[in-house]
Amino acid sequence: MILSNSELFKDYEKYIGQDIEVEGWVKTLRDSNKIAFIELNDGSYFNNIQIVVDESKFEEFKQITKYPLYTALHIKGKLLSIDGTKQKFEINADEIELLATSDTDYPLQKKRHSLEFLRTIAHLRPRANTFLAVFRVRSVAAYAVHKFFQENGFVYANTPLITASDAEGAGEMFRVTTLDMEKPPMKDGKVDYKQDFFGNEAHLTVSGQLEAEIMAMAFKNVYTFGPTFRAENSNTARHAAEFWMIEPEMAFADLNKNMDVAEKMVKYIISYCLENAKPEMEFFNSFVDKNLFERLDNILNNDFERITYTKAIELLLNSGHKFDYKVEWGIDLQTEHERYLTEHIFKKPVFVTDYPEKIKAFYMRQNDDGKTVAAMDLLVPGVGEIIGGSQREERLDILERKIKDNGLNMDNYWWYLELRKYGGVKHSGYGLGFERMIMYLTGMQNIRDVIAFPRTVGNAEF
Amino acid sequence: MILSNSELFKDYEKYIGQDIEVEGWVKTLRDSNKIAFIELNDGSYFNNIQIVVDESKFEEFKQITKYPLYTALHIKGKLLSIDGTKQKFEINADEIELLATSDTDYPLQKKRHSLEFLRTIAHLRPRANTFLAVFRVRSVAAYAVHKFFQENGFVYANTPLITASDAEGAGEMFRVTTLDMEKPPMKDGKVDYKQDFFGNEAHLTVSGQLEAEIMAMAFKNVYTFGPTFRAENSNTARHAAEFWMIEPEMAFADLNKNMDVAEKMVKYIISYCLENAKPEMEFFNSFVDKNLFERLDNILNNDFERITYTKAIELLLNSGHKFDYKVEWGIDLQTEHERYLTEHIFKKPVFVTDYPEKIKAFYMRQNDDGKTVAAMDLLVPGVGEIIGGSQREERLDILERKIKDNGLNMDNYWWYLELRKYGGVKHSGYGLGFERMIMYLTGMQNIRDVIAFPRTVGNAEF
Repeated sequence: MILSNSELFKDYEKYIGQDIEVEGWVKTLRDSNKIAFIELNDGSYFNNIQIVVDESKFEEFKQITKYPLYTALHIKGKLLSIDGTKQKFEINADEIELLATSDTDYPLQKKRHSLEFLRTIAHLRPRANTFLAVFRVRSVAAYAVHKFFQENGFVYANTPLITASDAEGAGEMFRVTTLDMEKPPMKDGKVDYKQDFFGNEAHLTVSGQLEAEIMAMAFKNVYTFGPTFRAENSNTARHAAEFWMIEPEMAFADLNKNMDVAEKMVKYIISYCLENAKPEMEFFNSFVDKNLFERLDNILNNDFERITYTKAIELLLNSGHKFDYKVEWGIDLQTEHERYLTEHIFKKPVFVTDYPEKIKAFYMRQNDDGKTVAAMDLLVPGVGEIIGGSQREERLDILERKIKDNGLNMDNYWWYLELRKYGGVKHSGYGLGFERMIMYLTGMQNIRDVIAFPRTVGNAEF
Repeated sequence: MILSNSELFKDYEKYIGQDIEVEGWVKTLRDSNKIAFIELNDGSYFNNIQIVVDESKFEEFKQITKYPLYTALHIKGKLLSIDGTKQKFEINADEIELLATSDTDYPLQKKRHSLEFLRTIAHLRPRANTFLAVFRVRSVAAYAVHKFFQENGFVYANTPLITASDAEGAGEMFRVTTLDMEKPPMKDGKVDYKQDFFGNEAHLTVSGQLEAEIMAMAFKNVYTFGPTFRAENSNTARHAAEFWMIEPEMAFADLNKNMDVAEKMVKYIISYCLENAKPEMEFFNSFVDKNLFERLDNILNNDFERITYTKAIELLLNSGHKFDYKVEWGIDLQTEHERYLTEHIFKKPVFVTDYPEKIKAFYMRQNDDGKTVAAMDLLVPGVGEIIGGSQREERLDILERKIKDNGLNMDNYWWYLELRKYGGVKHSGYGLGFERMIMYLTGMQNIRDVIAFPRTVGNAEF
């Protein structure tokens, strides 16, 4: 039986002294005086297996030492325990079978490549250590998200990606069409979308929230976890045109419950990755962000602070710190403000609640003061905002007024409004950009490096 | 503390005789001679809680008996054990608080609605028993998929939805654009897609397989689970424009390994749902498909048969059965052929392997006979094909020839071909349409009824 890297690293003690078989790709190969050392990996575990190749055993020794990186081999040999080194075992090879060749011009040679260069070879990039670590942590974190919500009784809701209404009214959207771009059907001087695939204009969604509210009104607790799109023409390290969002929505839940769940979820994802992606997380802490474990421990070991926006403004004004953007009640907090609050004033994660109505979305619940809404943003050290959420406006008359005030088309919201007519209980929810969370978990600084095949302005290759 | 339906049904014995609180929506309400019975549900569990309202305790009794369906209530009362009925407990109400009203014209009145009608009220449909059951099973099955792959060491790969190449060459695709449809920029008489958002023509993907192969060449075992799109202008009960696909891809794996994993996965999903969505699965077996449990048990309790396409043709020809479509070597099997094989000849699931090269996709591995490829389809009783997969062509020269033979543009495949240049080991994978699996699990006959907000020709509402 062939053992995978993960089986071997989990149970190597069981096999010490035995003849075993492994297969994998050559990650490094060096030869020193009649002995060659191959680090082999099949991709199932972060660490490589050391293979010792003794010249005396192999007629084709010279040939073996010339195998290009990423040659695939099947190896039989004895598993030996070794002491006093980082490696705990190695395999002394008896037979080496070539499974697949690799050309000598293999672009991922053993040297440090820039992240920019690696993006241009996205088909090979996942093989580099950094990306083996990133994409495994991404997978483990995704599973943590599902595990957290499922074990807490949330129903996974697959909200639609193609939508005929810009219901959230947020940001630029991509059009989805099957019309002939050269010669679209026209009617009264305008494109006739009645003839388009969906019989209407259709776009890619910017949020599943409104549909998640539908589901919460049936199942109480639901969450979405799926792709979301923004056609923003901005070329920053934090924006991608296609990214994944997590949007829980809870009926019978106010803003406090919302924050309770968000805090519990963030801590759960972090703990789960620290436990279930150990070598990868250690890699990040050693090579990507020396403060990573400290930063994550700070989150795990503290109760998150909860302050109102009004209090936050007061604290910023009284801090004596000079900000680039002027602080006054009514402004949208800038990243510098958010980071100052969480990094300098509280030195731990902070929920800021009850923002001015004017700077927040129409669906957020109006507070009794008439000028703020039951919104919450979670700010964390090192990044700033990582979660945004709110209690939703469940009162039909106020919601209608807010839709009008925001200049939105009431007709688009007929079903959203009807949720308030029939058992429209208080409810809350929030959104977490999954890639932001992965950046936070890994210390990676560019969103293009936590998405296997990133889509940004001018780039949809692979 | 307020107990949710799920907490109460799990642990009701703990609370017998105690004063408890619940909240939820009125699912049914009947009054009979000074006592009213309310079935209350907060959506967290399929079964309702029976609330007994004694006229003598409530001044506003008349009013309570007139609450429209889906009125939301908060109730305090004593939990009483009851014997000899389907119900095991009820709550004798002491206090009833109105949480949210419902209008008397609530469209989901207590009567049988047609599935067609319910589709027109997709914002309320999840509250109907059938859909409470469908969407919970969908969620439980989705979790089963993640659990199965994660526990078997697969990495979850998020492949891109927007793609600049029609790489799989399968079916019609939706265009994604931010160009002005009325006045797209033109160059040499053609639309100038250099000016489009991605600097190129972009579409919604029909499969994540090719990118999953990239990931498998780094991690060995990976799976995708995400939305996929087809702009097919077909209005059938089995096709939607937007649906979810599961696509595992495994390096160092041949077609047999591929079938082993597929069989194990299908059985795992079924077992997991039977165990973790009991009341819902019983509902389907009672009200949607009386043969459901029998059909699912047949899958769980049998080793799946494995036969070649050539053998399958032979069996069909010798069956003496008259088919609408003529059976001969070289044809694509029709649903009637597939169902005859699995339902009449084998009476259990069947993998059909090694199809003629001409009827299968370019990336499937050519067999030594020169005329068949290492493909496999899984056929199940009651449906026909539910999974399609193959070993992939890993030999560069043969793959190049096949791309040419299929009239595809070699330039689009530069990175796919490079996977074969650098450690391109044998590898296999398959695709499972998630909605097909849900239809199979529930007995629902129309794909529109297993997607909360289905997108089909002429329909992208909600």
